[in-house]
Amino acid sequence: MPHQPRNPSFAEEIKQSFAKQTLMKLIGAELSRVKAGHIEITLPYRLDLAQQHGYLHAGIVTAIADSACGYAAYSLMPPESEVLSVEFKMNLLRPAKGKTFLAVAEVVKAGKTLTVVRADVFGVNQEGQRELIATMLGTMICLR
Amino acid sequence: MPHQPRNPSFAEEIKQSFAKQTLMKLIGAELSRVKAGHIEITLPYRLDLAQQHGYLHAGIVTAIADSACGYAAYSLMPPESEVLSVEFKMNLLRPAKGKTFLAVAEVVKAGKTLTVVRADVFGVNQEGQRELIATMLGTMICLR
Amino acid sequence: MPHQPRNPSFAEEIKQSFAKQTLMKLIGAELSRVKAGHIEITLPYRLDLAQQHGYLHAGIVTAIADSACGYAAYSLMPPESEVLSVEFKMNLLRPAKGKTFLAVAEVVKAGKTLTVVRADVFGVNQEGQRELIATMLGTMICLR
Amino acid sequence: MPHQPRNPSFAEEIKQSFAKQTLMKLIGAELSRVKAGHIEITLPYRLDLAQQHGYLHAGIVTAIADSACGYAAYSLMPPESEVLSVEFKMNLLRPAKGKTFLAVAEVVKAGKTLTVVRADVFGVNQEGQRELIATMLGTMICLR
Repeated sequence: MPHQPRNPSFAEEIKQSFAKQTLMKLIGAELSRVKAGHIEITLPYRLDLAQQHGYLHAGIVTAIADSACGYAAYSLMPPESEVLSVEFKMNLLRPAKGKTFLAVAEVVKAGKTLTVVRADVFGVNQEGQRELIATMLGTMICLR
Repeated sequence: MPHQPRNPSFAEEIKQSFAKQTLMKLIGAELSRVKAGHIEITLPYRLDLAQQHGYLHAGIVTAIADSACGYAAYSLMPPESEVLSVEFKMNLLRPAKGKTFLAVAEVVKAGKTLTVVRADVFGVNQEGQRELIATMLGTMICLR
Repeated sequence: MPHQPRNPSFAEEIKQSFAKQTLMKLIGAELSRVKAGHIEITLPYRLDLAQQHGYLHAGIVTAIADSACGYAAYSLMPPESEVLSVEFKMNLLRPAKGKTFLAVAEVVKAGKTLTVVRADVFGVNQEGQRELIATMLGTMICLR
Repeated sequence: MPHQPRNPSFAEEIKQSFAKQTLMKLIGAELSRVKAGHIEITLPYRLDLAQQHGYLHAGIVTAIADSACGYAAYSLMPPESEVLSVEFKMNLLRPAKGKTFLAVAEVVKAGKTLTVVRADVFGVNQEGQRELIATMLGTMICLR
């Protein structure tokens, strides 16, 4: 069942909001897909985003997953809304290795106040092969 | 009941490992306290670490909480161990406002393989007053 | 900082609501302490509440922790409210052994719409000694 | 990619283990599907399994989801293993209404020590229509 957006200009607003997330710029993340209830964010690996073994730091894996979840929820909210993260849970499945990383968020259930969202984060190698490295389940709130 | 470290040089090793986390350097985070089962990390607010409303991005709140949890777990592990985050859950309690941020992690239960850790993240204003902005509950694994 | 209840008859209402939770009766759980922002529930071990190794089933550990969290949140809500669980995360720290079990819930942050609550569950042996077996971090919502 | 079981008698062992979960008998839950990496548990609604509004108590929703997750993980473990729940996170999406309930667990990533599992719980009405009421993301550990 496809999601029905209630804000006709959601895609434009998400792009504008994403551009205001200074962290996304600092780390080099880009909004690569915007659909109703579905958001993708891409991040090239960089040496200055690592934990002690050189893998992408879990905080950065979380940052792109959380932004993707927030905008996936936002895409189904009515006009004049704001979205905030209430909570999320992240399972780190494999070492965060990759040439680039891709966070794919999908709304599980959109409610009036709360929206539950799931995101998968993939490490993508030189050949373009994806490996699931983390999965998030989170709750977003709609503020008017 | 105070925690008993099994690795006499845990504090030194944590400092060295933290210095290898390039992300901590990029964002300006510092290891401000290292005790057995207890770690604190401090982060000054910066305009380039924000989400769309100017608050500290949840991914950065998570980054310092996760690093603090990882090292709190590591401080009680035997020599020759490595620590990895298995999963964590974060509740974002208030907008992440502050002049600086402080993540305080404390081991809840140290096991042979898995260690459960809790972290609170505070926003600290100009006057030094702390306000709890987020709380994490996570699981770390010991690899030998 | 002690919590300030906004509903003068919260304790009475919690007792009445708890009495309507037929599951609590089925498993033999009792409300053993009711304070503003703090609830305790006690459960004697029974052979028919077990998982495959004879320990208390994680679902029952969760049931008493969740009810305790819900009422801890409710105790700080205004009159005419209802409480529902939004989500919770449970870490199972040790095998759920005990002659009785005690769930102790404490509000972390009470908000207008959402309240974040933490609960610890202890196994209590014949001598009355407590051992922490599980810890929950959850979010409750206030409906009017 | 279908999961490859390493224990040829996993289905038989899961049925035997489930039969030892006295809680499942008490609440009337049944193992309705056993495949490698995939478990389903069915539970008819009963008046004595409710919370204060008459819906299925979140602890019981969790009990069937957790058992399903545990056995889904177990189905991919080597012979002579035991499975324990490390942690889980549950989002309660809608009031737990239904004539029966169905928990469907699916392994996300099977590892040597830890296995990450997802479960959806559906309320099923008189006409057999399913509605998603809760979703779990959890971690199971393999003990030998």
